[in-house]
Amino acid sequence: MRRLISLTTDFGVKDPFVGEMKAVIFSICPEVNVIDITHEVERFNIRMGAFLLASATSCFPAGSIHVAVVDPGVGGERRPIALETNRSLYVGPDNGLLIPAATREGIRHAYELTNRSLMRDSISSTFHGRDIFAPVSAHLASGLAPKEVGEEITDYVQLTLVGPKLERRGIACEVFYIDSFGNIVTNIPEKFRGKVSLNRRITVTLRGKRFSARLVRTYSELREGELGVLVGSHGFFELACRETSAVRRIGARIGDPLRVHGA
Amino acid sequence: MRRLISLTTDFGVKDPFVGEMKAVIFSICPEVNVIDITHEVERFNIRMGAFLLASATSCFPAGSIHVAVVDPGVGGERRPIALETNRSLYVGPDNGLLIPAATREGIRHAYELTNRSLMRDSISSTFHGRDIFAPVSAHLASGLAPKEVGEEITDYVQLTLVGPKLERRGIACEVFYIDSFGNIVTNIPEKFRGKVSLNRRITVTLRGKRFSARLVRTYSELREGELGVLVGSHGFFELACRETSAVRRIGARIGDPLRVHGA
Amino acid sequence: MRRLISLTTDFGVKDPFVGEMKAVIFSICPEVNVIDITHEVERFNIRMGAFLLASATSCFPAGSIHVAVVDPGVGGERRPIALETNRSLYVGPDNGLLIPAATREGIRHAYELTNRSLMRDSISSTFHGRDIFAPVSAHLASGLAPKEVGEEITDYVQLTLVGPKLERRGIACEVFYIDSFGNIVTNIPEKFRGKVSLNRRITVTLRGKRFSARLVRTYSELREGELGVLVGSHGFFELACRETSAVRRIGARIGDPLRVHGA
Repeated sequence: MRRLISLTTDFGVKDPFVGEMKAVIFSICPEVNVIDITHEVERFNIRMGAFLLASATSCFPAGSIHVAVVDPGVGGERRPIALETNRSLYVGPDNGLLIPAATREGIRHAYELTNRSLMRDSISSTFHGRDIFAPVSAHLASGLAPKEVGEEITDYVQLTLVGPKLERRGIACEVFYIDSFGNIVTNIPEKFRGKVSLNRRITVTLRGKRFSARLVRTYSELREGELGVLVGSHGFFELACRETSAVRRIGARIGDPLRVHGA
Repeated sequence: MRRLISLTTDFGVKDPFVGEMKAVIFSICPEVNVIDITHEVERFNIRMGAFLLASATSCFPAGSIHVAVVDPGVGGERRPIALETNRSLYVGPDNGLLIPAATREGIRHAYELTNRSLMRDSISSTFHGRDIFAPVSAHLASGLAPKEVGEEITDYVQLTLVGPKLERRGIACEVFYIDSFGNIVTNIPEKFRGKVSLNRRITVTLRGKRFSARLVRTYSELREGELGVLVGSHGFFELACRETSAVRRIGARIGDPLRVHGA
Repeated sequence: MRRLISLTTDFGVKDPFVGEMKAVIFSICPEVNVIDITHEVERFNIRMGAFLLASATSCFPAGSIHVAVVDPGVGGERRPIALETNRSLYVGPDNGLLIPAATREGIRHAYELTNRSLMRDSISSTFHGRDIFAPVSAHLASGLAPKEVGEEITDYVQLTLVGPKLERRGIACEVFYIDSFGNIVTNIPEKFRGKVSLNRRITVTLRGKRFSARLVRTYSELREGELGVLVGSHGFFELACRETSAVRRIGARIGDPLRVHGA
């Protein structure tokens, strides 16, 4: 059975960095399938990388290996780590990036990558993605036992993607992510679905402005240009406009506080 | 023999959507090669997606499976379908997107995707690419007989990419596509080549303006900045400028009518 | 053992060109891994393509096949070639693009691609990447002996990426490349590292302006916004700003002359 390695970075696709990581992976483990989750995480935006990684990895089969690199501290004090969860392995920097995805699956062990023999002969101080994370992930894909990557640790850096707050009159939440369709993804998870009824009018408050929206199940229920609220494919409630961009219409940014309440 | 699955979408590569589709495909059929045709179809532009799909699939070997998703009606009434042609399989929404490519190869059977057991356990209302089209294509790549995907249908949505019109004095055509080199691809197919002689001067009329161009065989026959007309790699006549962008020079948009006639 | 084919082009990823090349490759040799180095070489910028190819291929295992297409002369007089080096094979246009990468590895033989039976049945005059280079590379990946691709030649087009000049008071160099983090990559190779001591203040002169910078080993040693000089992952000295863009700060372009000297 071929294993899967996923890659999530802020490298973009103009530079040869991602190709170099894949060359290293395939030279160690040719019989693996490598999947790009995204290379367009906003530069050094660890929270955005953590959100995208967590939203994607649940589609992967058990046994997958997820490499993520959003790494402003590369070459400094921050440790390279691997996390073993109940269904996957995660490899990347110890800066919180891997934590939301791994926590969902249940973290069983965390290791600092100290086994030098698994890394490239020469390790640059600027590109651990290629020199440390790629080769370690490829050895894991070849069947290496996770505990062979280094010393077990427990003091890895935490990162929590905060959830919404229920208030007397509505929900205080925030903008987690804006996808390239312009949909505004909030931090309200799918499980809130039970609490609201479809087709209800609701009011969204953003930066002091109020917008009227309708709670729907699919984009296609909206009239063109109408603002809707629905559970998107990331598993969170999002604001969407049919066939146009919600963010162009109401103007949010990642991190903005939002309030959602009855009309 | 490994089969090929191609992907054509308007998802872009910033979001993890394409990676999620691949994770689903490989988890069902690890021994497949997946090729991205493009994920940069203009949002919801079904005609552009249909053009790019039709222009690319003739390079694929017989037995390939083509998944395309430009899907403004996702989650609504539109049906998910598969088409069996004389050389390939097509999987995607029933909105015309697959038709020009499939028609070229000869459509033998069309099916509505109704076999629920081939889809993901939980089907979101916004992302059938991941939850329906990807798993169905992977089962087909694993050898599932096409008729197992669902009920045969005949009333699928049609879409025709219109051809050019011969007029008394020239050809009335339109702008099908503008590639990222700025070449302006028309709907005049290669087979018109017999009717025109090389190095002739011709006049192109666009938005009431006339431009002089020379009919050539290759970009390299043009002088720098000279406007040329030649058969491009999509199999259609296109307007090109050597080492610069024809669209920046004469300013066309997709869908613009064009007239081409003798100088 | 699966072989690797790498692709380096100026095609971008909006058009289906890269997907078409992969379809041709896999239809001839399904058991190969294909890696994108980059498709974002600046249009027709052969030197930039040559630099990126040379900086990436050292990460690939011996036996890899590198296809590169930055090809303003497509369809004209320029020959299609293959180069056999001491560790790899290179396939692309005879315009210098392949030379810096291949020269590093030691060129053993050069061939003009004249064996018509290895190419696609119909060869367009605009897209040799798909019709000549892709199928030839796939046949090589399937085990074809390099000498079978065509006639041996010795008069292939040369291209040299010039190195820096040592002057009485410093180093005269140039901007080779600007990566998508905004780091300014010079043509001063890593081996100069012995000549300079860390943490020294140095002065960089660009377009008549002087900038003070500090020589460091990693980005993380810099204060936010501080300009640093370090050996980057391409193997050359580069100017970098921590967590921001050096090019936005000091404004260089590819090809700009730079002078680096003691503070």
